[in-house]
Amino acid sequence: MTRTVYVNGEYLPETEASVSIFDRGFLFADAVYEVTSVLNGKLIDFEGHAVRLARSLNELGMENPISKEDLLEVHRELVRVNEIDEGLVYLQISRGADSDRDFVFPDPEKVKPTVVLFTQNKPGLAATVKPMKVISIDDIRWGRRDIKTVQLLYPSMGKMMAKAAGADDAWLIEDGFVTEGTSNNVYIVKDGKIITRGLSNDILHGITRAAVLRFAEEAQMEIEERNFTIEEAQNADEAFFTSASAFVMPVVEIDGKALGNGAPGNVALRLREIYLDESLKKAV
Amino acid sequence: MTRTVYVNGEYLPETEASVSIFDRGFLFADAVYEVTSVLNGKLIDFEGHAVRLARSLNELGMENPISKEDLLEVHRELVRVNEIDEGLVYLQISRGADSDRDFVFPDPEKVKPTVVLFTQNKPGLAATVKPMKVISIDDIRWGRRDIKTVQLLYPSMGKMMAKAAGADDAWLIEDGFVTEGTSNNVYIVKDGKIITRGLSNDILHGITRAAVLRFAEEAQMEIEERNFTIEEAQNADEAFFTSASAFVMPVVEIDGKALGNGAPGNVALRLREIYLDESLKKAV
Repeated sequence: MTRTVYVNGEYLPETEASVSIFDRGFLFADAVYEVTSVLNGKLIDFEGHAVRLARSLNELGMENPISKEDLLEVHRELVRVNEIDEGLVYLQISRGADSDRDFVFPDPEKVKPTVVLFTQNKPGLAATVKPMKVISIDDIRWGRRDIKTVQLLYPSMGKMMAKAAGADDAWLIEDGFVTEGTSNNVYIVKDGKIITRGLSNDILHGITRAAVLRFAEEAQMEIEERNFTIEEAQNADEAFFTSASAFVMPVVEIDGKALGNGAPGNVALRLREIYLDESLKKAV
Repeated sequence: MTRTVYVNGEYLPETEASVSIFDRGFLFADAVYEVTSVLNGKLIDFEGHAVRLARSLNELGMENPISKEDLLEVHRELVRVNEIDEGLVYLQISRGADSDRDFVFPDPEKVKPTVVLFTQNKPGLAATVKPMKVISIDDIRWGRRDIKTVQLLYPSMGKMMAKAAGADDAWLIEDGFVTEGTSNNVYIVKDGKIITRGLSNDILHGITRAAVLRFAEEAQMEIEERNFTIEEAQNADEAFFTSASAFVMPVVEIDGKALGNGAPGNVALRLREIYLDESLKKAV
């Protein structure tokens, strides 16, 4: 089935969907994105993603070219026409296609942002719990990871390094501490306490992270937001990560060392259950 | 005049030149580039750019989809049809357009790299000497600046910061030392000695840098490759930068402080003259 995608106001077959070679997303990685999951044909945490998108655009001095209402409408229309029951909606906004290549931002009166959305069909997304093995690698990304830009080459390389090492993902280490996964926020659990790095420019301000921490708090779980090392993670009782596309996913091995008894941890599984239940109730 | 550009084997009007929304250059900044200058209708340092391109691709495990001979042919054809006497040829190669978005690299047997080239007409390029004012900003780019990737958002932001401060460019500072300019290698001159940072993963291995240092050596100038601070630069006799598009360009002010007598320095002007003379002799 050929997907229908959205490019600058038009719904098109994916095979015809393109952007100019002068698009600043292509030439300068001057673009931001969001990924929203779909369960039971409805959007999970759409509001959170829309708010973060607006923040990313604002941090880069980029105009927000589409209202939240219109954005929701496009998401829903793509879910509908592509018959997505479980899956993802990917959204990217670049600073647009200038008439030539120039490091200097174009005049926003003349060059309008490029808006691209497409769906990914992922049947079984909610039911899939894959115990993850991770390796640790140096975090050499740029310093503004709080802005969700498409500068994703290193995360992509990190996934390849993990694959080459027989693992599923990589945790990134900076100045001796874990920052996050290649495309997710990370957590360890020790003596019932959930430990995760605090928010700063060093990590993405995960929408799923915020929701999961809120639910954990409501469930009277103890949370400590602080840095931790890979050694502390290896000696934790359990570990997990959160992301919009994986929800809450247990991590069972770090740099070859099995955590606890090597099985997905109870805190991770419980939080996944709560997150899916609660998010579905508010899905739009 | 509508430019003719090159995309994956085809010569097209620029208005029709596009890449898929699934191109990894657009979605992941998974692409490298080169800029080669044109003087008297001929290519400057083409060989150096071709060699560096091959290295960038190799560092990213990306297949080189075009032979040096074919690449030269495309450069020449674009220069010819667009009647470029002085200007630039921009070349970008991405890992190609996969059938969907995935951090994991696609199978190189199935997904071939995207090759894009276009010209920029810049009459007067060789004759233009603009004394540059620069500001210093933090260097927060990723750690592999030796690979010429399109992750250029921060350099682009840096140019905007410079513009906002009434300057022309920004010099980047990491751990107290200058790394490079937003899109150029930088130098200071003190007591006749040329000082520039040594090569590492921290800076681009400039093709113009290599040529200029070779010419400086041949002209019996003293060169010291080492780190320097912005304070040392402010107290230098002169400063300049090199790049493929600006050749050798004098810097006359750093963070509001004029260097020497505030006029372009003799070493910079002499090196520019030598570089243009010698490079033109070998232009292809």
